[in-house]
Amino acid sequence: MEISRQQFRDELPAIKAAIDECDFIALDTELSGLHRPGTSKRIDSLANRYAEYREATERFIITQFGMCTFKWDQPSGRYIAKAFNFYIFPTSMTGRIQPNRVFMCQAQALDFLSKQAFDFNKWVYQGVPYLTVAEEKAYMEEARKKLNDELPDIPIDDKERPFLQAAKDKIDAWIADPKDDVCVNITTKNAYQRRLIYQEVRKSYSGLTAEGRGGFILIQRLTEKQLKQREKERKKRLEEDCEQAIGFRKVIDWISASKKIVVGHNMLLDICHVIAQFIQPLPPKVQDFKKLAHDIFPHMIDTKYVSSAAAELQQLLGTATSLDVLTFETRREAFKNPRIDMDWLFSRYISDKAHEAGYDAYITGSVLLKLFSFLDAQQHPEKYKEPEEPAPTEDDDQETGQQNKEWDISDTEEEPDPNWTNDDDEEEVHNYGSIKVPLMTEQGTPTEMLAPYVNKVTMVRTGWEYFDFVDTEAIIEQHNTFIVHCKDKTVPRDTVFNIFSAHGKPVLDALDEQTVMVIYEKLQEDQQHIMDKIKTQVSEDPECQNFDLLIETVAQYHRRIRDL
Amino acid sequence: MEISRQQFRDELPAIKAAIDECDFIALDTELSGLHRPGTSKRIDSLANRYAEYREATERFIITQFGMCTFKWDQPSGRYIAKAFNFYIFPTSMTGRIQPNRVFMCQAQALDFLSKQAFDFNKWVYQGVPYLTVAEEKAYMEEARKKLNDELPDIPIDDKERPFLQAAKDKIDAWIADPKDDVCVNITTKNAYQRRLIYQEVRKSYSGLTAEGRGGFILIQRLTEKQLKQREKERKKRLEEDCEQAIGFRKVIDWISASKKIVVGHNMLLDICHVIAQFIQPLPPKVQDFKKLAHDIFPHMIDTKYVSSAAAELQQLLGTATSLDVLTFETRREAFKNPRIDMDWLFSRYISDKAHEAGYDAYITGSVLLKLFSFLDAQQHPEKYKEPEEPAPTEDDDQETGQQNKEWDISDTEEEPDPNWTNDDDEEEVHNYGSIKVPLMTEQGTPTEMLAPYVNKVTMVRTGWEYFDFVDTEAIIEQHNTFIVHCKDKTVPRDTVFNIFSAHGKPVLDALDEQTVMVIYEKLQEDQQHIMDKIKTQVSEDPECQNFDLLIETVAQYHRRIRDL
Repeated sequence: MEISRQQFRDELPAIKAAIDECDFIALDTELSGLHRPGTSKRIDSLANRYAEYREATERFIITQFGMCTFKWDQPSGRYIAKAFNFYIFPTSMTGRIQPNRVFMCQAQALDFLSKQAFDFNKWVYQGVPYLTVAEEKAYMEEARKKLNDELPDIPIDDKERPFLQAAKDKIDAWIADPKDDVCVNITTKNAYQRRLIYQEVRKSYSGLTAEGRGGFILIQRLTEKQLKQREKERKKRLEEDCEQAIGFRKVIDWISASKKIVVGHNMLLDICHVIAQFIQPLPPKVQDFKKLAHDIFPHMIDTKYVSSAAAELQQLLGTATSLDVLTFETRREAFKNPRIDMDWLFSRYISDKAHEAGYDAYITGSVLLKLFSFLDAQQHPEKYKEPEEPAPTEDDDQETGQQNKEWDISDTEEEPDPNWTNDDDEEEVHNYGSIKVPLMTEQGTPTEMLAPYVNKVTMVRTGWEYFDFVDTEAIIEQHNTFIVHCKDKTVPRDTVFNIFSAHGKPVLDALDEQTVMVIYEKLQEDQQHIMDKIKTQVSEDPECQNFDLLIETVAQYHRRIRDL
Repeated sequence: MEISRQQFRDELPAIKAAIDECDFIALDTELSGLHRPGTSKRIDSLANRYAEYREATERFIITQFGMCTFKWDQPSGRYIAKAFNFYIFPTSMTGRIQPNRVFMCQAQALDFLSKQAFDFNKWVYQGVPYLTVAEEKAYMEEARKKLNDELPDIPIDDKERPFLQAAKDKIDAWIADPKDDVCVNITTKNAYQRRLIYQEVRKSYSGLTAEGRGGFILIQRLTEKQLKQREKERKKRLEEDCEQAIGFRKVIDWISASKKIVVGHNMLLDICHVIAQFIQPLPPKVQDFKKLAHDIFPHMIDTKYVSSAAAELQQLLGTATSLDVLTFETRREAFKNPRIDMDWLFSRYISDKAHEAGYDAYITGSVLLKLFSFLDAQQHPEKYKEPEEPAPTEDDDQETGQQNKEWDISDTEEEPDPNWTNDDDEEEVHNYGSIKVPLMTEQGTPTEMLAPYVNKVTMVRTGWEYFDFVDTEAIIEQHNTFIVHCKDKTVPRDTVFNIFSAHGKPVLDALDEQTVMVIYEKLQEDQQHIMDKIKTQVSEDPECQNFDLLIETVAQYHRRIRDL
């Protein structure tokens, strides 16, 4: 379901219902740009990678947000998905107070979107706006000031003095002799003139009120009762405005409050942008970011990470873990369970809408179910044994046919004739017989099967296996990586860097105060040769004399740690 | 005529012809944003205003460029206009080398464009790309390197070593025993694998060439002759690519080379953006910018400045000088001359397309003709005397009707029946009898009437009458402005600022080393009172003892300068 700015308000209850009822939520974003140009090194430290992502959130924006909820439907023995696609544009919904938002676009990123038939007119004309928490506060404060006439004075241009004097003369004449006129109108040509009139009435005409109309300002004297009524109306309108101005953040707030599993594919950058754009700017330190993100989304699962980390899946799927590849691979027989259907009200995605955020969220959530159903079958094959069935009789034909052709949804099912209703048929719910995937326990914690993957997300081109929102990351055992440990002292990073620089361009990443990881993007010699040379250098280097330095491969390091 | 990325190449000759044949060129731009948020002071110095504009050019981009050429057509006694509307988008036309362009959008600016029905899909999908002079050089250099196989080596990921080894084995096997195969194909999955193969063939297989095909790389041994042919083809393709990649800059280069009058409305920001986006980044110093801009566009005319500076026009038009107002006002009888028609091939703008850049350029050029025709009539009324005409006979009716209803073009003219051709009629050219506006002399210099307005453009909210690309600007005589002159010494700006700060927020702008202008945004007292107080302060201030400071109003300053 595509949600435009114009429909957003009306669709909020449906969105809330989908979040409340579901088992988990998949999401995906499209962005106005990816990285600052010319600085993406092939390999980097975790802290630098986070800094890069954080900087990206300060520049680029989410242009499209896809959310797909998945709910297990017991009577029909399948999952029902509801996919929402939101274009997001930082305009002001009410048009009254506009946060002056400036954002960056990367031409290449827009080119990329255009290859996916992104509709830029829908983006600007129909994109849903939003306010962050801080912006909401500023908005309310500004609006309150306006309500209480606390606006700062503006200077009067010489050119406009005759206009202002004429207006004052007109008001004075009306006060002196109102005749039958209950009000006086001042014609204005622009916003500046309007503001001058408001200011003049506020300052010099106590008891009079000025209200903007199309092209003129209506000035009148209100009774105490009328004034109160006016005040009340303005306050109510303000609250409604603000409620509406929060806009898309409502959806994110609801997802967060639900504490449900949030699924993405290669989702670290998505999570960074979602938090920075809709909640608050990202903190400078990666540890603070981890805590913030985990507070907002307590159970994150990354399908890219799952498919690369689960040995059983690796065997079957190989090293390619793009969403396209996973979608293709999980159409195999081994990933038959569970059956997933789009809710009939959300028919938009029955046909292929690849790379629209809403569709990608749907695909991501589907892949998650397929992967964990497969893992569950590996661990509990007895659950998935097909019951011994008699050879199909003529009556059964259609049903079994459906079970084996899950992906040809539209072709096989016959449209019921709407003019012919059989009461008995209406009672019957077809059960697709698929098996629910155990993701969460009844206590609201991840199942044993899910737990190893929760809050770990893919992070490539570093020395780490993944990015972990809760724990310390594990180190990849690869031959271009060394560990330098310093007994009793803080490791001398500059010295280590200089020594390793003799054999290529090293990247340093901190493990703890006394330990650093050194990664070469490009290893020019055999690992053992370099190790030997470095050990010699260390023993001869005067700067190393005060440090008891231990140089190890990652495997050696892991063994040492295990043995401690 | 709207020119899309897809049509651009084919329409270049028509664009060139329009520029070459015309009397002058009007232009207009639409931008992705206007100012950095929250820093626009109401009044500022000229240097700061330029700095602000310059910074804007580093952030925002032209999204639409409108150009309208105007050519006097002697046989028909009217001007013929050709309006071009270009969506501009910084993609790469060829897709081979993409300058990674990042630009800013101001949400408000896109909102503004959307109110004018701006088509954001046309912008991204069909916008014409461009290269600046420096980008063109870098593009050519990069392309040359690629052509000569001078690309830097990329490191080999551990994961890809088996892939690379398998490829090498296959090539080696083919070399050892080619059988009947003239080539060997290596299947690749992504750009990284392709680049690895190119690199390996280049480094380890002298005499073999690798060429990309869809999904695989074809490796073969070419003869000397084939190699030369291949080289030649690649070079030719490169030159064509580059020619095409220059893209929209061609149009700007042609306008510049024509040295024709370039007309805009409130055009300072347009000129800044045109130069910065298509030619080169703006220099830090305003004086250098003036020289650069004047070299590129030697004759600029700003219709906003003309309408505000010409006393005869001011009387008639008043202080409102927006393009909308000028368009409306110049439809009066006093601005009847000259007749302007859109070339029939450019019919897009017969109906109103207000605020599309191409239409605004058309309107701006039309306003220019109307304004200067009016001024010409004031100076040479004899030229504009209508000849004594006999009362219209029945035959004349249609013709005179047309002359008085210039703006109802489509209604009055009858479509000729295409099936019925009268040879005599074809020879006849209707003469609308309007009078050419004398803008340039035959020597290619501005006429005496035009000269006072050439290269002066509107610059509001400063102490200056205008921005002058060639000379020093004149100071506005207004009561919120003071001149401080220091005899024999450099004026002590900080001291002056402190003294004036006692009476409001002063803005200082330099006239020369010894003279500053001080402007108050908001004058809190009568000018003479403040003058008296400041003179007292100056006489008592110990910091002023060493300086012989003269405080004057602008009028006093002007008188003193005149008397020197």
